[in-house]
Amino acid sequence: MKTTIFAFTDSSPKYKQIYEQFKLLIEQGDIKVDEPLPSIRHLAQSLQVSRNTTLMAYEQLVAEGYIRGEGRVGFFVNEVEPLCFQEGRNSSHHEPIEPLSPVHIDFRADVVDQSHFPLQTWRRISNQVLTGKDSFRYGEPFGELCLREQISEYLLQSRGVRTDPHAIIIGSSTQQLLVYLGLVLKHDFSGMIVEDPGYDGAREAFQLNSFTLETLPVYETGADFSHLEHLKSRLIYVAPSHHSPYGVSMPIQQRHALIHWANKMQGYIIEDDYDSEFRYTQQPFPALASIDATRVIYLGNFSKCFLPGIRLSYMVLPQSLIDRYKNQFAHFESTTSLLSQFAMAKFMEAGEWNRHIKRMRLVYKRKMQCLVSELRRYFERDVSIIGEQSGLYLLVKVHLDRSEEWLIEQASIQGVRVYPTSRFFMKNRTDQPIIKIGFSNLSIEEIQFGVKLLKEAWS
Amino acid sequence: MKTTIFAFTDSSPKYKQIYEQFKLLIEQGDIKVDEPLPSIRHLAQSLQVSRNTTLMAYEQLVAEGYIRGEGRVGFFVNEVEPLCFQEGRNSSHHEPIEPLSPVHIDFRADVVDQSHFPLQTWRRISNQVLTGKDSFRYGEPFGELCLREQISEYLLQSRGVRTDPHAIIIGSSTQQLLVYLGLVLKHDFSGMIVEDPGYDGAREAFQLNSFTLETLPVYETGADFSHLEHLKSRLIYVAPSHHSPYGVSMPIQQRHALIHWANKMQGYIIEDDYDSEFRYTQQPFPALASIDATRVIYLGNFSKCFLPGIRLSYMVLPQSLIDRYKNQFAHFESTTSLLSQFAMAKFMEAGEWNRHIKRMRLVYKRKMQCLVSELRRYFERDVSIIGEQSGLYLLVKVHLDRSEEWLIEQASIQGVRVYPTSRFFMKNRTDQPIIKIGFSNLSIEEIQFGVKLLKEAWS
Repeated sequence: MKTTIFAFTDSSPKYKQIYEQFKLLIEQGDIKVDEPLPSIRHLAQSLQVSRNTTLMAYEQLVAEGYIRGEGRVGFFVNEVEPLCFQEGRNSSHHEPIEPLSPVHIDFRADVVDQSHFPLQTWRRISNQVLTGKDSFRYGEPFGELCLREQISEYLLQSRGVRTDPHAIIIGSSTQQLLVYLGLVLKHDFSGMIVEDPGYDGAREAFQLNSFTLETLPVYETGADFSHLEHLKSRLIYVAPSHHSPYGVSMPIQQRHALIHWANKMQGYIIEDDYDSEFRYTQQPFPALASIDATRVIYLGNFSKCFLPGIRLSYMVLPQSLIDRYKNQFAHFESTTSLLSQFAMAKFMEAGEWNRHIKRMRLVYKRKMQCLVSELRRYFERDVSIIGEQSGLYLLVKVHLDRSEEWLIEQASIQGVRVYPTSRFFMKNRTDQPIIKIGFSNLSIEEIQFGVKLLKEAWS
Repeated sequence: MKTTIFAFTDSSPKYKQIYEQFKLLIEQGDIKVDEPLPSIRHLAQSLQVSRNTTLMAYEQLVAEGYIRGEGRVGFFVNEVEPLCFQEGRNSSHHEPIEPLSPVHIDFRADVVDQSHFPLQTWRRISNQVLTGKDSFRYGEPFGELCLREQISEYLLQSRGVRTDPHAIIIGSSTQQLLVYLGLVLKHDFSGMIVEDPGYDGAREAFQLNSFTLETLPVYETGADFSHLEHLKSRLIYVAPSHHSPYGVSMPIQQRHALIHWANKMQGYIIEDDYDSEFRYTQQPFPALASIDATRVIYLGNFSKCFLPGIRLSYMVLPQSLIDRYKNQFAHFESTTSLLSQFAMAKFMEAGEWNRHIKRMRLVYKRKMQCLVSELRRYFERDVSIIGEQSGLYLLVKVHLDRSEEWLIEQASIQGVRVYPTSRFFMKNRTDQPIIKIGFSNLSIEEIQFGVKLLKEAWS
């Protein structure tokens, strides 16, 4: 590493500026893979900051996979997937691919990229786990402590959420956790506010527990809070980082307003942070649970960012609910594979998890950019693109005076599968149909070919 | 194989007599490992029975792991763990083991034997599964079809339960399935009959869904049905194969009476067949679902007979509930690891599952015999042994005028952990305390040493 001169340029926290500088240097290749970084002490001295400041910057870089700590030896730069989208696209741009077999491009959003999955590492860890004496029992009812500790550390680094591992409940899916949570909350609450449109799976989990639903209208630009004060329910379920399906993030003012509302109403906010890992255009907004966790139930999972089939989700309970929840489910068996929990804990502990997230963020960013640019190229003003800043899918609002059914069926005839969004909507319907297009397990070439076919289908 | 003359000796089905004869020949070593059996056709001719009869006999032997089919080549004898308990015990009988380290013998029942786990096979299959394209998606909401097909085949062979794979729901635990089932049943039913004593975990699952509980008294000798007709509830939860905790099996007359009751009441029987695989002294009684499945919800799981931490359970719904259940949970994600489901399906398909069950039945039988004989030797008439015919634990009723707490605490001081049963009882309490003693993951030597310490503790 060459000598680099830092200048603190703005009023943002110094650790953040150090972190930004190093991130840039690594991304630009100015610091090479496996090169050591200055020691925490040395860097602190030369920048005239406390060691705590440099430590925080390094921890953020570790959390995001840019660097790794190797005990007392120091910190080293990780391999980072280059952002090679432009080259990738150009190389195949003038030679459209003609597939040999009957085409089927499936723009599903409920899968993850398979080609970058850390197969060898995961296998090695999973095989190790099977020989442990502890692997032949039932698991702890609320999840293994080793995994809860890793999640707690990760939440602090990545989402600013400060939590005790004992406040974390491991479950098998968001819906299963919402059903169990509902069985606790229904003693004190009868109504629930949900976003419209919003995640139908959560809505159904609440309906199973006979909650009366009220709605918070959400538009492409964000939620409308104007009627919140007039609603009766004291519980609200929201996805502030990445609204489902619009993908919009809740601005900080609304986050504060929501927390204020929950405190005033003595209610709870259920914050579903289901794919906060994949944001491409800006820093993620802080989680509600990082602002004030007193009345926030925070939900996260490993489906989008690791493997949906592993069935590993978690919920962070506020202090006021921990005892009540644990008493009610004291004699319940865990709903999540003990082996998967051990493997994930080891995977996270070894730093593999952060490396994976960092790698996948770049992989998905490249795919998202490709999808957006192809849609713009083929459809120009016939579609509006919604939610391309984050997540594993985007939406297109199609201005062709066709129904959702027609659009999906025509695509299907051309061998392309795209998905409806009508199931997310309750009363707050849109004027034009909106189609959901996922890309996570498609290659750049498949995305390009799929959009071409979609153009033919909808012409 | 030498020429063997069969004689049909009684009025039981001929396939059963053929199956019994071959089982005996294999267990006695009259047919050796890897020796071929007569072909289905040849055997049918020489015994003057239909080919279907010989096929059924062979299929039962395959299901229980005695033999294996190798496609068109025919059927061959598997290796069967010899019943070497007597030798094993005698060899260490006169040389009591003095452990080098501080003792801790844990008679827990919530683990499985680790030393006979098919580690290599399971690893190989699990590793294969990870490369499948299908492994990178969410799973089917009600479980993967491949696993449901294997379970359907297994239930027919082993429990006589005839079921369509589409009637099977895969879940992560009995309790999770009972909670979900309760969310469906509560629309039409408000009360539930549970056994007293009985599995507290099920009771709690029903209470979460606000069912009113009524009780069916159960004694060491079996259930008392005399008041069943006077109860109001039309739902009943029972474990007829192996009552929890008494271990008693429900006689066929009571099974028929229960089915009659359910049909008359237009209610449902929830049959928890949680460890029917491990019965040591006689043929298992038929499952309720094998007699008349119209009003039976059948529950099974892989916790006792494979690995508790894998979190793999299943429920077979009667025709009248399938659509209702599936509609209610249509958009719910599966609660069970997709990878575990694929691995278990392959494991079963390869015949490894039946081999494993067969092997473990002998391993556990040997441990159970050792535990019983040691308890009799040390305690003579001071304890009554309950439920030694099946399962992975037994109960001892202790006639020493001491409380459950005292017995557990004194054992603990000697470095032995044994377990209470009071949590299973509601109103139908016993005069003397009953202690639960599991053995599944202890060696013969550990069992012997543990009972010796228990004697010291309780003297």
